[in-house]
Amino acid sequence: MKVLIVGANGQIGRHLVQLLSESQEHTPKAMIRLEEQISYFNSLGVESVLTSLEGSADEIADAMEGCDAVVFTAGSGGATGADKTLLIDLDGAAKTIKAAEQTGTERFLMVSAIHADRREMWGEDIAPYYVAKHHADNILRASGLVYTIVRPGLLTNDPGTGRIRATENLDSGPIPREDVAQVLLHCLDNEHVFNKTFEIISGDDEIEEALDRL
Amino acid sequence: MKVLIVGANGQIGRHLVQLLSESQEHTPKAMIRLEEQISYFNSLGVESVLTSLEGSADEIADAMEGCDAVVFTAGSGGATGADKTLLIDLDGAAKTIKAAEQTGTERFLMVSAIHADRREMWGEDIAPYYVAKHHADNILRASGLVYTIVRPGLLTNDPGTGRIRATENLDSGPIPREDVAQVLLHCLDNEHVFNKTFEIISGDDEIEEALDRL
Repeated sequence: MKVLIVGANGQIGRHLVQLLSESQEHTPKAMIRLEEQISYFNSLGVESVLTSLEGSADEIADAMEGCDAVVFTAGSGGATGADKTLLIDLDGAAKTIKAAEQTGTERFLMVSAIHADRREMWGEDIAPYYVAKHHADNILRASGLVYTIVRPGLLTNDPGTGRIRATENLDSGPIPREDVAQVLLHCLDNEHVFNKTFEIISGDDEIEEALDRL
Repeated sequence: MKVLIVGANGQIGRHLVQLLSESQEHTPKAMIRLEEQISYFNSLGVESVLTSLEGSADEIADAMEGCDAVVFTAGSGGATGADKTLLIDLDGAAKTIKAAEQTGTERFLMVSAIHADRREMWGEDIAPYYVAKHHADNILRASGLVYTIVRPGLLTNDPGTGRIRATENLDSGPIPREDVAQVLLHCLDNEHVFNKTFEIISGDDEIEEALDRL
């Protein structure tokens, strides 16, 4: 499959692009926001496309040209305000989902956040972010797309271990971004996780095994 | 009908409570956030209930007890940041919709904003607000409730004229809050506007007539 990575220049995005470019089965296409980010993907020999999530769904649909799947791993990040959370994490996701529907790009993976369906666990400071993620996930689930919603715990930059715990509802726990990217790779054409939502943290199970148990 | 007004202490909310308390057919129940707001509604002889939109859907469902309809006219307002826009205008609305579904309160009127479905008309500063309103409206339309989404133009405190223009897509224009409240009153049991979304500004048509033409 050719896979559009939305948020390819983010930390999970870069790991995933790397994994896909090394894979025999898949080819990444990096959707990025800034011209200065192109050279990094050129150096990997990875195709990139310059498209803003603040643009229209039609522009995002153009970026999806030739792709069979989409991974949404973009986020406005902690340094910006809730205004960008609304524009990127919620509306950017909604427009990407619409673009996938328009172009018939049926397979859609969403990087969400642990506890995004459990309002009682949202701390006051993080609640606005969770509102955006929760409703973006709901929009995806209500779409006609073949979705998988992956909800990692606390993201770290530790090296990946290849071992996770995955179920519908987890307590909190850390997980390296590298392992999240591995999970996404393993989800792409795994029919067992089609139309499922689940949470992941570091654990004892090999990724394939953990996904098959869902 | 007994009608729960969510955001009863807001400017449109107060007009609507007044109209409903004078009406022969309907009775208002004012949902408010602060204890100090109770006395105003007591002085009108109007029942009120103290419930925060930042609470749970179950708490909002309790407030809905005994009601046949809901009017959502709450908003975090321009003085707060986009974090409250996410929590109130989007998630507060989503929880109120869920509460109406839970309690079988089928009739649901939403006060939205002109151009909320037309991203190309969202100015940069107002865009985050529009994202919240747009997606709250979509959640309502996807629910099983009998909705009417009313999208006024620029709200003013001028006295109402009782005359409006109403269609699916309008250019901009002002409308007194008093007229918006009158429109809401006329929508409540008007089957012609069930499951419709439309925009209103001041105009030449009497309200009943304008609604019947939709």
